[in-house]
Amino acid sequence: MVQRGDVYDRNCPTRVIANHATGQWGSLVLGKLLAGTKRFGELRREVSGVSEKMLAQTLQALERDGLVHREVHPVIPPRVDYSLTTLGAHAAKQISGLFGWIEENLPDFLAAQEEYDARRVENV
Amino acid sequence: MVQRGDVYDRNCPTRVIANHATGQWGSLVLGKLLAGTKRFGELRREVSGVSEKMLAQTLQALERDGLVHREVHPVIPPRVDYSLTTLGAHAAKQISGLFGWIEENLPDFLAAQEEYDARRVENV
Repeated sequence: MVQRGDVYDRNCPTRVIANHATGQWGSLVLGKLLAGTKRFGELRREVSGVSEKMLAQTLQALERDGLVHREVHPVIPPRVDYSLTTLGAHAAKQISGLFGWIEENLPDFLAAQEEYDARRVENV
Repeated sequence: MVQRGDVYDRNCPTRVIANHATGQWGSLVLGKLLAGTKRFGELRREVSGVSEKMLAQTLQALERDGLVHREVHPVIPPRVDYSLTTLGAHAAKQISGLFGWIEENLPDFLAAQEEYDARRVENV
């Protein structure tokens, strides 16, 4: 039987899974899929800054971890849809909640950064 | 007045802040600080795999964003304590909740990975 994981153990698979789910592109892709099934091109457009290669790698990692479902439709031209699994929906909601909170608190973060930078200038 | 941020805008500062808070080392450092104030050496030991340089960079980014408070005590030898700010405590609780959920669901993640790998072998 598999024990509970430990992200603080560098050899535990949960550390890699956590990185996939909260990583720069994985987190944004999960958040976008909360709105519903999307194609590769839609994700590419909606997650600004992601390259085709990074998006493909990100989706593959999320699919392997069981967070994203990939559905290939046998039509011409071929159509591939990406959606959240039950596991993925739970992770996406939590990450999206954190990101929404960061977005709401932008003024506080900017104030902290300004204060930090001003202190650094004083000490030079 | 500063507007609400948007992590999907590649030029919005929230994207970088989100990366600091959920990044590989930032997320683990925030989680460890939930237990209370810690020194650099303690964090270095408790966050397995982090290098001295990466930990220093991570703490500096979290401090600048206003998530971590750094307190230098004028004693010999010098002592530096790191603790969560109010903003940091909120972020840390959310990340820690997600990580705890990933740890609990490790068997499901491993099952998904095995199934994915088996499908790949079939298709070769």
